[in-house]
Amino acid sequence: MLGVQSQVEAALARSLPPAEAIPARLHQAMRYASLNGGKRVRPLLVFAAGELGAAPPERLQVAASAVELIHSYSLVHDDLPAMDDDTLRRGRPTCHVEFDEATALLVGDSLQSLAFELLAGQDFADRGRQVEMLRLLARASGSCGMAGGQAIDLEAVGKSLNQPELELMHALKTGALIRAAVLLGALCGNALSDADSAALDRFAKRAGLLFQVVDDILDCTASTATLGKTAGKDAAAEKPTYVSLMGLERARDFAGDLRRQAREALSPFGERSRRLLELTDFITQRKF
Amino acid sequence: MLGVQSQVEAALARSLPPAEAIPARLHQAMRYASLNGGKRVRPLLVFAAGELGAAPPERLQVAASAVELIHSYSLVHDDLPAMDDDTLRRGRPTCHVEFDEATALLVGDSLQSLAFELLAGQDFADRGRQVEMLRLLARASGSCGMAGGQAIDLEAVGKSLNQPELELMHALKTGALIRAAVLLGALCGNALSDADSAALDRFAKRAGLLFQVVDDILDCTASTATLGKTAGKDAAAEKPTYVSLMGLERARDFAGDLRRQAREALSPFGERSRRLLELTDFITQRKF
Repeated sequence: MLGVQSQVEAALARSLPPAEAIPARLHQAMRYASLNGGKRVRPLLVFAAGELGAAPPERLQVAASAVELIHSYSLVHDDLPAMDDDTLRRGRPTCHVEFDEATALLVGDSLQSLAFELLAGQDFADRGRQVEMLRLLARASGSCGMAGGQAIDLEAVGKSLNQPELELMHALKTGALIRAAVLLGALCGNALSDADSAALDRFAKRAGLLFQVVDDILDCTASTATLGKTAGKDAAAEKPTYVSLMGLERARDFAGDLRRQAREALSPFGERSRRLLELTDFITQRKF
Repeated sequence: MLGVQSQVEAALARSLPPAEAIPARLHQAMRYASLNGGKRVRPLLVFAAGELGAAPPERLQVAASAVELIHSYSLVHDDLPAMDDDTLRRGRPTCHVEFDEATALLVGDSLQSLAFELLAGQDFADRGRQVEMLRLLARASGSCGMAGGQAIDLEAVGKSLNQPELELMHALKTGALIRAAVLLGALCGNALSDADSAALDRFAKRAGLLFQVVDDILDCTASTATLGKTAGKDAAAEKPTYVSLMGLERARDFAGDLRRQAREALSPFGERSRRLLELTDFITQRKF
């Protein structure tokens, strides 16, 4: 996994405009917000799903970078005062604290554009499939995906959601981009059968939800120092979480169920899904 | 031109998620920010450039909507308190005033995603050219295009720029997306020769700059009621403009020169460029 992480780090560094290119302050801030060693879970998923169809690494690097740029943009905007108003991210001041609010706004906007520029700028042999990847990533990012989930999250503050409502919110807020990472990775390789595609989509949805349930558990059990971001924020902001909905123990059981379901969905792929299985365990057991 | 404007209005209304789709407040705000009868200059340019290569209208509608969604997103974010802090746009309260800041942030983010989703969701016969259109639009939107111009604009407040610096700012801030509109329109139709492509690019760059010079003139000469947005704002904010740089009369002369250059660049196209010529005049003579 470390090999993939450093590949992605290098690919991101190459894709971002140099820090001295005009407008320099914006480009410095874009690099600050993206090249700061996150867990890179989404890129890892892209690469792991690429193994199902023997995808070429140079294509996976592009897809992984594009997905991670979307994720980075969302963190910068989520941290803004008008949203979560957070000052700490990955153990460092958030982008609008280190730079300023207007710059952080433009950083998010520009990282989003760059994700699509990157994915459209690569010469994929199958142009039809490249267009499909662009469509998938755009859909997963927008109002029927990640940004839509964020909007539901905002509206839910102080309200109590039931489990289906909470699942819809998370399916959009975190799930959509995690699903896109898995599907994009697979689209970089040889075509899958319809049945295999359906199985992979089942895995992707379970893995996305699992990621969020674990996030909720960590928000309530881990320290700010370990997380690199402010712990206990969701509870403090009266945001509905799996822990507030079902309690810590049942949330842990639920994570265990999701992990099992995700692993089961991978059974048609045999040995080719080894890295996806490893990642499922990593997502479940992560401490930050 | 009215026919094109109503076609684009209808295409945008169809492309945006319905106002009642979850998350409803976000979707209402996206429609509020996009379906409010702007001048639709960029869509008009897409359609006019499409006439150079007999482009099919359904393809032009998609390209025009995508460009206009990018433009709409930029207005929503530019109006935010952290940026220009404006309360009036197209004669109505700005998005963050009518809704709230967090929603306006997500509206801009989601409109950007939707632009790429739309352009990637259409079945263009030539997939390679579709990827090129996606790349062009993404490049024009990001830190080396529109968002980059906005960043230079922010840094320039209270400073005096010389004419090359001012031109670079505008080439990015407004010019990049206007150029993209022209090139995307042409890419919807039959391929142009290299010489014709170069001539069209020359036109697009002159037209983009012309649009901005006229904007600067209007900001200082027109009333808030006519503009539908706050007049005199640039001067009040000590932003460098063509009027502050060269005075009103010389700015008007400069606009006249740009108009002539833009028209000259179209000479290879003969009758096929009639609508682009009309639009050049419209951009020069507009009162709002």
